[in-house]
Amino acid sequence: MELFETLEEYYLARCLELAERGKGHVSPNPLVGCVVVDAHGKKVGEGYHQKAGGPHAEVIALEQAGERAKGGTLYVNLEPCNHHGKTPPCTEKIIESGISRVICGTLDPNPKVSGAGRDRLQNSRISVRHGFLEEKCQRLNEVFFHWVKTLKPFVTLKMAMTLDGKIASRQGQGEWITSDFSRQYVHHLRSHYDAILTTASTVIADDPKLTVRHIPDFEIKEKQPVRVILDRLFSLNPSVYQVFDTQQAPTWVFTSKIRHNKDHAQRARSKGVRIFEVDDTGLGLNLHEMMTILSKEGITSLMTEAGGRLSGNLIQHKLIHKTYLFYAPQVVGDSAAQSAFSSSASFQLHHSPAFHIHNSCQLDGDIVVEAYPIPSKALARK
Amino acid sequence: MELFETLEEYYLARCLELAERGKGHVSPNPLVGCVVVDAHGKKVGEGYHQKAGGPHAEVIALEQAGERAKGGTLYVNLEPCNHHGKTPPCTEKIIESGISRVICGTLDPNPKVSGAGRDRLQNSRISVRHGFLEEKCQRLNEVFFHWVKTLKPFVTLKMAMTLDGKIASRQGQGEWITSDFSRQYVHHLRSHYDAILTTASTVIADDPKLTVRHIPDFEIKEKQPVRVILDRLFSLNPSVYQVFDTQQAPTWVFTSKIRHNKDHAQRARSKGVRIFEVDDTGLGLNLHEMMTILSKEGITSLMTEAGGRLSGNLIQHKLIHKTYLFYAPQVVGDSAAQSAFSSSASFQLHHSPAFHIHNSCQLDGDIVVEAYPIPSKALARK
Repeated sequence: MELFETLEEYYLARCLELAERGKGHVSPNPLVGCVVVDAHGKKVGEGYHQKAGGPHAEVIALEQAGERAKGGTLYVNLEPCNHHGKTPPCTEKIIESGISRVICGTLDPNPKVSGAGRDRLQNSRISVRHGFLEEKCQRLNEVFFHWVKTLKPFVTLKMAMTLDGKIASRQGQGEWITSDFSRQYVHHLRSHYDAILTTASTVIADDPKLTVRHIPDFEIKEKQPVRVILDRLFSLNPSVYQVFDTQQAPTWVFTSKIRHNKDHAQRARSKGVRIFEVDDTGLGLNLHEMMTILSKEGITSLMTEAGGRLSGNLIQHKLIHKTYLFYAPQVVGDSAAQSAFSSSASFQLHHSPAFHIHNSCQLDGDIVVEAYPIPSKALARK
Repeated sequence: MELFETLEEYYLARCLELAERGKGHVSPNPLVGCVVVDAHGKKVGEGYHQKAGGPHAEVIALEQAGERAKGGTLYVNLEPCNHHGKTPPCTEKIIESGISRVICGTLDPNPKVSGAGRDRLQNSRISVRHGFLEEKCQRLNEVFFHWVKTLKPFVTLKMAMTLDGKIASRQGQGEWITSDFSRQYVHHLRSHYDAILTTASTVIADDPKLTVRHIPDFEIKEKQPVRVILDRLFSLNPSVYQVFDTQQAPTWVFTSKIRHNKDHAQRARSKGVRIFEVDDTGLGLNLHEMMTILSKEGITSLMTEAGGRLSGNLIQHKLIHKTYLFYAPQVVGDSAAQSAFSSSASFQLHHSPAFHIHNSCQLDGDIVVEAYPIPSKALARK
């Protein structure tokens, strides 16, 4: 059990717990949980934002509290909104309820509205404090925070390899080497993202479905993540691969403006696949243009499950914001076996892209490392 | 704080704590700690085996207890010895002391004497039980247990690499990339081994000292581990490299029987270096012969700190018993950069050498993985 320094942190932790339940359902909104405590310190309401378009966490918690909210305290992981979206601003609802104190984990990261909710409440003589479990509150909504600041998708890279960084033998045979539980965890991760990105080579090699499966309570989710496939020449025959079954999940293909197999494209279109033609840099599709299109289409988060080349290039071009590295407990021991990352760049070790390890743990015999790229080129500690 | 199911486990944990203090000083003996509790349950003595040739843990604890040992219980992580070595058998001392119960973590692994100490005590009407914290007791003495069973050194492989398994750029530049704390931890590990193994290539690339340094209380240790260098042709000029300064630590060179630079060998000898000529398989020195010679010279444990080729071959030839893999938080992303392990073998991933991850943790920004090879060729879980 976690011990908390203050009552504020205790209730904020509960807000985070509630907020988490919305994972995979609220995009492009943030994950929000809320607890209402009455004037005598008794918890009288709680709620969380369950799905995009549905009521906000504060509204649910305040409705549960009813009259008992008067003079009480509202805890919420994110600054309450002060603008009319699909629902009226939460600040109005809080003012009406008679709440006298609001404790929020962190302010809204959107530079245009940050502090506006706080100011509105304070103008109505409600005491507002923020900055509790702030790092956790920011991490929970890292996708949303990235989105409102940059209007680009938050990109997470997933890679599974051996302890010596290999993904296939020198003959090119790649196989599932991680444990069943690691694979299930990947399905769990997929369910949190708006889209999954892969390449034609991976589709040819593995014929993956790239859908969310093996998760007991996933039926309640309305939509599968979009499967985004990079296929420069549209070499994939839509009649052959499982990923073109759009009954299972939406499929989008990015292909070259200059030249691609029109026949394959036509057949894909007739199966319900959306096709985006983008610039070809000569070395491959313009990844920046792809990200811009995806953001226009409302994709706030993307998990890449691809081979060494795309994965290496995404790291080299600083296009990723987080990584999950899975290590199967094996050593191939062959320098000619395929490396997990193969960009076109050649770095000295000291100048290679650096990461901050957020977490590492064992998962059924494997090791999983959750890491964030460090923006500066060298390691902070050097 | 750890919680224990039973009093036996509580005292055995204390024995392990005491035993650990002997690390690096007792080889070729086992690490042993002992606690004596009187008939009323009061702790009246404790001790540990401090150095090879010195008194055993049981003797120290019993001397401290004196008359109070009568009717009491003796806890010890390893079955007391029943044979005359440099000191008389502990069983005699225990019988004399009037102890009525002996609780030991595990029996002696030496098939020739296992159970003999227990039987001798039981014949003197002392109650003996064993099998408490047994896995921990066996792991603490994994080197000793391996030694008495096989009469070969316990070989630990240390390797430091990036998150994608690289140890140098494609131009071959290897640099220290792990954190200061990881490096200090390596010195700590070195201090537990009888010898450190490396190759001429590593000496040429890094000119390492391979001594134990940066450990505050290391002065008390009498001897540095032996530095064992594989140099098939004796290409290393002893006037050039730090590892030939035998004032710092003993240095042994293994070189080819068939052909090597006699001039270098002669100069090394004059600096106090020991030289062993072994068979040359045509691909390199006979590693099995080297292990046999090392064991004859009393080397019970060996840590390898070498490059990709020797490390890969040791894994491929199943000559290692444990690994410490250090991952620096960087991704080189270049498939042409040097891999951590490069044996001559080419495995399919499923058939590559498998490991059991015993522990993985973060160390000042790095990840350290402690793993044991799984003897069968495939993963147990498959």
